[in-house]
This record gives sequence, C-alpha cells and structure tokens, in this order.
Amino acid sequence: MPMTIKRATWNNGPDLAFDINNKANAAIEKYGREAVINAALGTLLDDKGKIIALPSVYDRLDEMDRSHIASYAPIEGEKDYRKIVIDTLFGPYKPEGYISAIATPGGTGAIRSAIFSYLDEGDPLICHDYYWAPYRKICEEFGRNFKTFEFFTDDFAFNIDVYKEAIDEGIRDSDRIASLINSPGNNPTGYSLSDEEWDEVITFLKEKAEDKDKKITLIVDVAYLEFAGDGDQQRKFFEKFSNLPRNLFVVVAFSMSKSHTAYGLRSGAAVGISSSKEIIEEFEASLAHSARCNWSNGTHAAQNILIELERAENKKIYEQELVDLRNMLKSRADVFVTAAKENKLTMIPYFGGFFTFIPTDKAFDIVKDLEKENIFTIPSAKGIRVAICGVGEEKIPKLVQRLAFYTNKK
Amino acid sequence: MPMTIKRATWNNGPDLAFDINNKANAAIEKYGREAVINAALGTLLDDKGKIIALPSVYDRLDEMDRSHIASYAPIEGEKDYRKIVIDTLFGPYKPEGYISAIATPGGTGAIRSAIFSYLDEGDPLICHDYYWAPYRKICEEFGRNFKTFEFFTDDFAFNIDVYKEAIDEGIRDSDRIASLINSPGNNPTGYSLSDEEWDEVITFLKEKAEDKDKKITLIVDVAYLEFAGDGDQQRKFFEKFSNLPRNLFVVVAFSMSKSHTAYGLRSGAAVGISSSKEIIEEFEASLAHSARCNWSNGTHAAQNILIELERAENKKIYEQELVDLRNMLKSRADVFVTAAKENKLTMIPYFGGFFTFIPTDKAFDIVKDLEKENIFTIPSAKGIRVAICGVGEEKIPKLVQRLAFYTNKK
Repeated sequence: MPMTIKRATWNNGPDLAFDINNKANAAIEKYGREAVINAALGTLLDDKGKIIALPSVYDRLDEMDRSHIASYAPIEGEKDYRKIVIDTLFGPYKPEGYISAIATPGGTGAIRSAIFSYLDEGDPLICHDYYWAPYRKICEEFGRNFKTFEFFTDDFAFNIDVYKEAIDEGIRDSDRIASLINSPGNNPTGYSLSDEEWDEVITFLKEKAEDKDKKITLIVDVAYLEFAGDGDQQRKFFEKFSNLPRNLFVVVAFSMSKSHTAYGLRSGAAVGISSSKEIIEEFEASLAHSARCNWSNGTHAAQNILIELERAENKKIYEQELVDLRNMLKSRADVFVTAAKENKLTMIPYFGGFFTFIPTDKAFDIVKDLEKENIFTIPSAKGIRVAICGVGEEKIPKLVQRLAFYTNKK
Repeated sequence: MPMTIKRATWNNGPDLAFDINNKANAAIEKYGREAVINAALGTLLDDKGKIIALPSVYDRLDEMDRSHIASYAPIEGEKDYRKIVIDTLFGPYKPEGYISAIATPGGTGAIRSAIFSYLDEGDPLICHDYYWAPYRKICEEFGRNFKTFEFFTDDFAFNIDVYKEAIDEGIRDSDRIASLINSPGNNPTGYSLSDEEWDEVITFLKEKAEDKDKKITLIVDVAYLEFAGDGDQQRKFFEKFSNLPRNLFVVVAFSMSKSHTAYGLRSGAAVGISSSKEIIEEFEASLAHSARCNWSNGTHAAQNILIELERAENKKIYEQELVDLRNMLKSRADVFVTAAKENKLTMIPYFGGFFTFIPTDKAFDIVKDLEKENIFTIPSAKGIRVAICGVGEEKIPKLVQRLAFYTNKK
C-alpha cells in the first residue's frame, strides 16, 4: 500500500533522456571522449564535447553585484525582465493585443502553468504525436487528457487535416481544449511549421472560437526559436496571433535554456496574448498564484543577466555569439542531411533545433545496438532522436553511417 | 467569463509581503535609507541595509567552471548535493530509517510536493494558526483542505491539547492527513517547539498511526533552522523521527535560501524519512515526477555551491560566517526583547528565526500608521510580523517604541 496518493504514485523509472545521458557519461569516463558519440541530451556542446556557455551571458554573471544574485526576484519576475522577454521574443513581429509575461523556471514551468490554468481535469490537450515526453507527464500529473494526432503526412508535411479532426473531436466532447505546438525546430523532429501552415492552424482555431461557449488555448513551445532560421524569419508567425477572439487565448513558452546556453539557471516565461485586458489580468493573477505555490519566484541572477544583456554594448556581442552558434549547428545539420542521403537513411525534414529524427518502429532495438558501439541516442515508439547539438561535426558522418546500418538492416 | 478554470482563477491581488517590500523600497528611494525601517521581507540585511551575500557561498560561484553553471542538474538533484543535504541537515541527529532527498526550488517546492503527493483532494492539512501564507495558498491551488489549530496557550506555549484535537478531528473525517509544523524559528512568530513538545507531537502521531488504515504525513519546515540555536541543539528533535511506523511518513523541507543567503538561487530539497525502503522509493519516484512536470530540475550552480562548500577549507569559513550571522541576528533580537519589556509591548516568545511577532487584532490599522512614519511591517489577522533580519540594531529601539505606541493606543 503506497503512502503517496494514487495520482502521484509512479513506477516510471528514471527519465529516459537523463538516464541515457548518464550512460554516455559513464562511457566517456571509461573509453575517453573521442571514442563516444553522445547524441542523447539537448545541450549544445562544442566540437571537443564541452558544453558551450556563451561568454556574453556568463560575463554578466561574473560582473553582477552579489546582491542581485542573492536577493529574491519578484513572484512574477523582474519588471524589466518581463518587458525584455516580450520585446526579444517577438522582435518586429509582436502581435496586436494585450501581452504579459510571467517568469517561470525554464519553458517547463510555462507549459505546466498553461496546462494547469487553462484546462480542467479531463479536458483534452491536443498535441502532435512526436513530442517532448514531459507534455504527457504534465497532463498525467494534473489529470488532463493528453491526446495526440498524426503530426505528418506520408511525405512529412504538417498534417493539417488530421489536426483539424483532432481539434474537432476534442471540442465536441469538451468545452475547453488546448492545442500544444512545439515549433520552430520541433523537439524531437527538427520540423518547423511554415507560415502557411500556421495560417491554416490559426484560421481554423478562430473558426472554432465562433462558438462562444468554447474556450480554446493555443500553447506554443518555442524553446528552439533561435536555432531555426536567421533570427528573424522564424518569428513572422507571431504576428498571426493579433486580434484574437476573446475565447481564443495564446500562451507562448519562452526559455533562456537554449537561446542563452543557460539550461541550469532555470529561467523562462509564460507569455500570454489576448485581445482582452481582463483575460490578461486574469492570466497574470493565475500564473503568479501558481508561481507562489510551486517555486515561489525565479532565479534572480538569470533575470538580471537578461536585463544586462539588453545594454547595447552587451547585446551586440551576444547577438554575434548567437549567430556563430546557429552556424555551428546548421553546419552539423547540413553534414547530417547530406550523409543521410548518401546512406539512404530516411529522416524527417530538418528545419532547425537541436535534433534530427529517424522514423522507425525498431528504435529501442537500434538504440541498444548503437550503445554497444558507444553511440547514444534517444528511442521512442516513433523513432530515434539524435541530438546533433551535442555531436562535433567530424563525428557526424560515422553517426549517420551507423544509424543507417542498423536502421536499414532491421 | 474567465478563460482560466475555476480553481485557477484568483483575485488575490499582489503578494502582501512582496508588495509592502516594494513600498518600503520606494520610500528608501525617496527619503534615503536612514529615514526608513524596512521590516517587511525575510532577507538578512546588514546594519547599513544592504543584503548579506556570504563570501564563502558566492566565492564558490565566482570560481565555478561555467560548465557547472550552464548545464542541467539531474531531475532529482546532483547525487552529492542530495547526500550533503541529508548530512548537513541532520548533523549528529540523523534519524534511523531510510532517508532520501530530492532537490526542489527552495523550501516552497518541497512543501508543495509533500502536500501534492501525500494528500488527496479534500484531505486536511493541519497547521498552526500563525503561518506562512503560501501554505494555505498551496492547499487552495491543489484543492487540499487547509485547517488551523490554535498554536499557543494563553501564556504562549505550544498548545498540544488543541493540536491533538485538531489531528483527531482530521483523522476522524479522512483516512489521510498531514500535519505541517514550521519550527524552529517559526515564521512569523519566532517560536520553536521544545524537545519535550516534539516528543508529545511524535508520540501522539505514532499513537494515531496504530490504526493502519490511516496515512499520516508530518511535514516539517525548517527554513530558519540555522538561526534558532547554536547550530546543534536545535537539531536534536530530528532524532525523534527514528523507526517510524510504516504509515507515518516525515518530510523535512530544506532550503538554502536563509542558511546560505541564497534566496534568489532557488535551491532546497524535500527530505523523506521512513522505516520502509519501499515508501522511500515511492517518495523518490513521486517527487521526481513532480519535479519534471513543474520546474524540470534545480538551479545547478546552487547545488554545486553546496557541494564545493563541503570541502574542509571552504566549510570552515562558511561555518564561521554563519556563526557571525547568528550572533548579529541574536543581538538584534535581544535589543528587541529588552525594548519590548521597557515599552510594555506584548510579543510572542522569540526563540529564533528572522521575525518577531506582536499579537494584536488591529494589525492592519497599526501597519498603516507605521507606514506613514516609513516603518514597514507585515500585518495579519493575528498580529504584526516584524522582520528583524532586515533592520540594523541601532534602529530597533525606535522600531519597538513606535510599535508599542500604536499597539498600546488602539
């Protein structure tokens, strides 16, 4: 008989990605870094296998007055942090409407609070069937109904017809639904919805919102935004969230983890967009309440780093470092895509982000075979996630060759 | 019609302590630090009004390899962090049984997860009626039933009889209950349960646990542990959590915020104690699931600071700094208690922690009067919380004199 309540009793074992990453680190310890390919964890490593910590970001921490690290941040986040999050997130494509940001621990906290505050127990969260596992776990934690639709057509384009069917079905059975889309640079696939695909999504959701008894929330996870384009073009879709119907609410999950190589500092924000001032005030009160009740307030140093980075002299350096990171990642992806073609390895079209994806129903077997060769990747029912963010360019041809060997053999 | 679900719709306005602290800061901006007494927020300030950031703690951050700041911590926390938390928390008074620590953002995350995993909806959390407001808020967030009992007898001793009645009543109506006690150095009162009072609590709970259909969880918030004694004597009660019955589970909420002047780094842990290995494994799985679903993982730098502080050469410096802090706080408290006697100001006996407390049913009026004199404190239905942690010793006589003036007048 467990002491924990039924809903909080789990036999999941350790988190898969972190667990495989531990195995990879043990292999590195044993065989040396050169002998191991660790494509498990979503962290940017340089070509020597060392985690990248952008100097522009961590120089700010070094020079920060200790009182700005030690002190509490406000519950909802520093005022300037909240403003800068909105400005830098949307860039020139800020949607028209009322917008507010509430600080959260990474993107996780933002997604958690959007699901907690905008879906009731049993209400459906509609998500693509290639997805970051914590989305499902969050729904399980809070008794929300996690439902997936087929992300892709046979030729790996966004399956808008199936998406519409899933939303239709959800909204038929429930007065509240949420749609969660992780784009651009989707984890685990590397896919980005095109602006035309976003148009279809938003037009459809607006249509559904004509029934004023329905409450629809669109949650957009943009964790990989800075690594899925040139820094500008991939933001255009934000503009489409302008002038929403009152009963269509958008929450964008912002995270400093990837864009600022600040994974361990746990800083992000939930950014709400609505045509109604009242709906935004309600968002602020609800998310601040959740903040107070779950983590109290955010990592103050991280918020202050973002504020300091906004100074012109710092911003210029950060932006150049970001361009370099993007180019490094793009270069790895290019080598991967070329090698995949050469090795006849089917992959989902890569548009950006930290991962490429090999669709296969034998992923768990293949990943085990690869582990014997000290190659570490993440398996799922749909295929293999390959964290190219963590693999130096010169190791990628071998990585692809071995992936192709096992995948085409099975 | 709100977009948020009913349970997540709040009209609370801003958090009281942070809001009054904002007012205090505005007054300092306007009138200068000398003219203002800010006894609102639970943060240690030196006698000049500057937040204290212990050199031993922040020197570790300065010298830390950036990769140890930037990288993710494991979901449940660094292995060494989890071990050191247990060792330093209990010191020589480690209870017998299975013990495990799961990293959380501050003490808040630990209390949140204990309440979430060990109480079902509607189950009672029994708490003293002087309490840190987020306890109640957490219960409201998750639909748990927050119930209070009279903390004190008329002569301000722990009201064990009323405590027993409250537990009895809770356990009569529900198969699960939790008891939350914030001691030593209770926030807001400064009260600490004596070892004899703890004996009575634990003997009683063990007695209740003889009914094997009941599941009882004792949550102990020890945020102010390091400021309520000599560093040792106030830990003795931990030993009493040895050899618990299987259906009596203890969670101790550890926090680095106060003990390490690391409020803004958001690092703590939930420490579970049980006589059953199975119950502890279930605790680990449950709290790790909640971590993944709410904040993902903890602030890595903070965990690494605690690990580095364990080295003998660092530990010695930290421990001396902590002694100095304790003495500073004790000295302020002594001045407060003496002045209270002189001014015939009734206060709850102070045993430690960041706060003294003036019982009165006119707290909101008095606090407003004090604000006009640029003295900032926190009112509640039960009285006035005075954050002596934030007030230099030389300002305390005036603070007490003005508190007495308004309290004795009303």
